[in-house]
Amino acid sequence: MVAGLESAPSTLLGPGDDGAVVATPDGRVVVSTDMLVENRHFRRDWSTAEDVGHKAAARAFSDIAAMGAAPTALLLSFAAPGSLELSWVDGLMSGLRAECAAVDAAIVGGDVTAADLIVLSLTALGDLDGNAPVTLAGARPGDVVAVCGRLGWAAAGFAVLGRGFRSPVQVVAAHRRPEPPYFEGPRAAALGATSMTDVSDGLVADLGHIADASGVRLDLRGDAVDVPAKLREVGAALNVDPLLWVLTGGDDYALAATFPRETDLPDPWRTIGVVAEGEGVRVDGRRWPEGGHEHFR
Amino acid sequence: MVAGLESAPSTLLGPGDDGAVVATPDGRVVVSTDMLVENRHFRRDWSTAEDVGHKAAARAFSDIAAMGAAPTALLLSFAAPGSLELSWVDGLMSGLRAECAAVDAAIVGGDVTAADLIVLSLTALGDLDGNAPVTLAGARPGDVVAVCGRLGWAAAGFAVLGRGFRSPVQVVAAHRRPEPPYFEGPRAAALGATSMTDVSDGLVADLGHIADASGVRLDLRGDAVDVPAKLREVGAALNVDPLLWVLTGGDDYALAATFPRETDLPDPWRTIGVVAEGEGVRVDGRRWPEGGHEHFR
Repeated sequence: MVAGLESAPSTLLGPGDDGAVVATPDGRVVVSTDMLVENRHFRRDWSTAEDVGHKAAARAFSDIAAMGAAPTALLLSFAAPGSLELSWVDGLMSGLRAECAAVDAAIVGGDVTAADLIVLSLTALGDLDGNAPVTLAGARPGDVVAVCGRLGWAAAGFAVLGRGFRSPVQVVAAHRRPEPPYFEGPRAAALGATSMTDVSDGLVADLGHIADASGVRLDLRGDAVDVPAKLREVGAALNVDPLLWVLTGGDDYALAATFPRETDLPDPWRTIGVVAEGEGVRVDGRRWPEGGHEHFR
Repeated sequence: MVAGLESAPSTLLGPGDDGAVVATPDGRVVVSTDMLVENRHFRRDWSTAEDVGHKAAARAFSDIAAMGAAPTALLLSFAAPGSLELSWVDGLMSGLRAECAAVDAAIVGGDVTAADLIVLSLTALGDLDGNAPVTLAGARPGDVVAVCGRLGWAAAGFAVLGRGFRSPVQVVAAHRRPEPPYFEGPRAAALGATSMTDVSDGLVADLGHIADASGVRLDLRGDAVDVPAKLREVGAALNVDPLLWVLTGGDDYALAATFPRETDLPDPWRTIGVVAEGEGVRVDGRRWPEGGHEHFR
């Protein structure tokens, strides 16, 4: 299924053998794995096969970027019922390949089997190019908290689809094909980011992982967290506070990081708060939402 | 689920972050992925959770060994119904960890999700330690064909279990927990193996992949392919020609390779044939089984 795919500069031996060989000039490799199950992570009536391919690869590469590394290779394990149309598989591979091409990575291996439902497992590799990996654990009091990439767009799109609508197209497209700021991951590492993660579960939830791992409190300023006009518009139509999508919506794969205070942060990074002693995440001095984000998950 | 697992010398950053970091001192990494689905690749009434863990890791590491590399790391994606007992998951992890310990590798990452059936996806990494990767494509006329590791034992065990028996314990154990000759993979690479694969689908089938990729014919001598007394005994009891298990049975994860004729092959490698011009695999000059192995799959 994956034979004959394009190669990438780091592909020393591609699909078709017992294993692939990928160049790791840094002497270290970053690796991450993800599993997606039909009707849990995607719906075939809401997303095309190409969309699912794009999003699956985006999820995988986003984890690599969040370590401060550049994606180099992708492996796919794929289970599906025998009744699945081949055109769907073609579409999936096309979406995966397009997302690989966007980061100069290649699909280097895979495995296909039969099952009663569609299950994808993606493993991504990445190269640190001499940078230290940026973990969840390095945030220090006095650092600033910054984000780049979209927040709340995919959640708004999910809400729209859940109400049976197919527009506004911008938020529906954001749900179907996230656009993670891949190249900002290695850039943040080079800028000296002290901690970083990708926003897959929601900004407050994922920053909570940094707070926990680093043993610090993250204080966000509500007025620094931008709520785009389009999300206000969709929120008004659906009677939802759009700040909820921005603070708790996942699947946009923005990057959230902490940096030393003196860092001169370039666009598109936006400073949204500071690191303090303590624990957890607060917005304007209060735990937000009251009672913790789990309530809204 | 995978936090707090043992580390290995190559583990620079283990589970719990967006990605893991694994040392690749060679400047290249070998990577392979596999997916196992309940009732297709394993049965919970035939194998314990520990058995499934051992076998899943063995499958993954065997692919790494077949490239001539030493396993360094394993990633697990795992889907299961919410009703699955936690003790089964504990057993699975215990089996995976034990197989990792046998090769000095570690579980460095994972992902867990819910699904209506159990699906495992394993990705293994490995290090070539300066050797060239041994592919399927390098066999040349005049080379010898050699194997090491068990052949036919897992197939005999599968046949025994399929008839409702639980013994002889040796063949049933071979089905449940394969014992791939991992360390012979890098050794074969250092000895100058021209091609190699692991026997996961059956000796003739897997040697067929070498014949196809290398554009050669592999001539095996039937009398050189050992049929152990235990398999003869089980074959007699089940009225099956045990040579069928040896030549077509998979899941033992033996290594099969070709070497230059002058190679002084050490134990446990056994020479079973030669490489000639042509195509396909023959036993004593004839395609075996007549009509191709597919008939017996």
